[in-house]
Amino acid sequence: MKPQETYQHRIETVLDAILPNAETSTQKLHEAMRYSVLGGGKRVRPLLVYAAGEALGIDADFLDKPAAAIELIHAYSLIHDDLPCMDDDDLRRGKPTSHIAFDEATAVLAGDALQTLAFEILSQPLHGISAKNQLKILHTLTTASGASGMVKGQMIDLGAIGQALTESQLETMHNHKTGALIKASVLMATYCNNTDDDVLLSQRENLAEYADAIGLAFQVRDDILDIQSDTETLGKQQGADSAADKPTYPSILGMDSAKEKLYQLHQKALNSLESFGKEADLLREIAGFIVKRIA
Amino acid sequence: MKPQETYQHRIETVLDAILPNAETSTQKLHEAMRYSVLGGGKRVRPLLVYAAGEALGIDADFLDKPAAAIELIHAYSLIHDDLPCMDDDDLRRGKPTSHIAFDEATAVLAGDALQTLAFEILSQPLHGISAKNQLKILHTLTTASGASGMVKGQMIDLGAIGQALTESQLETMHNHKTGALIKASVLMATYCNNTDDDVLLSQRENLAEYADAIGLAFQVRDDILDIQSDTETLGKQQGADSAADKPTYPSILGMDSAKEKLYQLHQKALNSLESFGKEADLLREIAGFIVKRIA
Repeated sequence: MKPQETYQHRIETVLDAILPNAETSTQKLHEAMRYSVLGGGKRVRPLLVYAAGEALGIDADFLDKPAAAIELIHAYSLIHDDLPCMDDDDLRRGKPTSHIAFDEATAVLAGDALQTLAFEILSQPLHGISAKNQLKILHTLTTASGASGMVKGQMIDLGAIGQALTESQLETMHNHKTGALIKASVLMATYCNNTDDDVLLSQRENLAEYADAIGLAFQVRDDILDIQSDTETLGKQQGADSAADKPTYPSILGMDSAKEKLYQLHQKALNSLESFGKEADLLREIAGFIVKRIA
Repeated sequence: MKPQETYQHRIETVLDAILPNAETSTQKLHEAMRYSVLGGGKRVRPLLVYAAGEALGIDADFLDKPAAAIELIHAYSLIHDDLPCMDDDDLRRGKPTSHIAFDEATAVLAGDALQTLAFEILSQPLHGISAKNQLKILHTLTTASGASGMVKGQMIDLGAIGQALTESQLETMHNHKTGALIKASVLMATYCNNTDDDVLLSQRENLAEYADAIGLAFQVRDDILDIQSDTETLGKQQGADSAADKPTYPSILGMDSAKEKLYQLHQKALNSLESFGKEADLLREIAGFIVKRIA
């Protein structure tokens, strides 16, 4: 099994154990929470936590909770993003979205509860991580998720429909909407230990640069796929962004320049890992996957 | 100024400083966050944090962030609770609800961001509180808010419309929907220090009993007010719960028994504070306020 797959299997087990079991009084809530988290998704963010941990020689046991927490945040954001009052999407990862499979009220609450659960599992005592570092992990994830991170990006996104954005405005939106969580995945891993922070300072900077590059690359590739792929491969509606009149990299730069930008971001990501040896190979592999993925 | 009012003024200032300023790109999001948090509400949960802190001799400076965090969680839950797909309420605290004053998408995102902000401010270094205790504060608030706390209560509530609940089922619902946060307010205060936990163990138990009693009393009084008050005094639609065919204490027990239950809960709250002297007077006052309030 390839390292990526090993960690993808690992995070499935971790998430399954963390999510609440079905229980009569709130069975539907728990089902909705499990439905949107389990059995789907590329697990890019957890993979990044594990891969950054590998690059720093951190045991995977110390990385499970942060890896799970960031996937819970991602899952909650997708549920709310798909709501009729937001993007109004019926299909996600090839399955009906939460408000279609359940109902809108359950989807809102399942999203709310998944966000809480992310912070709940990070506030329990974590094996191998000092309390101070645990607070840094929490702070990294909260700032990346909230009104100055992901939610800000979603808000800009909602306001951008039908607007002519410049490349720099588009980049600001994506840096918040998807980039913030991708960067947080990598940064959280740097706190998954008992050691003093300063030891890792230069490594943390390199990893942050890597994360910035692949975060943006992820979105450029997404925009290209929205135009060039098909609904079945994507597991969501092909052309949804163009149809919704959302600005994309190909629409602003043209397809050729968007592909050139993607190539340059890939190089930048690889360059930022120069000081690492083969322990960062999984990070390199993920950068390649993000740039070349077909769904 | 009465102690209650002092703390009510204090929490306004704290919340104002914590909430994001208006900013061009996401001005609407920040406005919506501020709109639902500031300038309204009885601040019962922050008051309980400060009052429990007083009972334990803890400086109010150490209590500001936990007091603000629990109010942010409360505010987020009200925004989402009022959404068309949930209770579909147009009026809250005498003002249009968030999705009426802004729009549904903004209301969903403002609620999401307020939840995140609550955990963000608790994950920053907190003056006078050890990192271990800070994690306990976070864990207390997350477990009280999520799928085994407040959100569970909201889910039971949604499923209870038109159902004939027993008194014990109604109590389970309220213990989660409102009781969990009220208990968390008091418990969080017990961790706002650098001392060893065990010092406070018996005091924490007494305060937890107090919180359980007033949490339930709060809801019994709410149900009575829903029938006996008027819309202007309440600041929300009078009779909304009865009209929505939601089970209430007066509808299950009859009005006289509901009032008797309220009296007994008040006594229970006061009894649980017996081991405290006048330093717990504010807690006693709040119990009286909850039982006698008219809005």
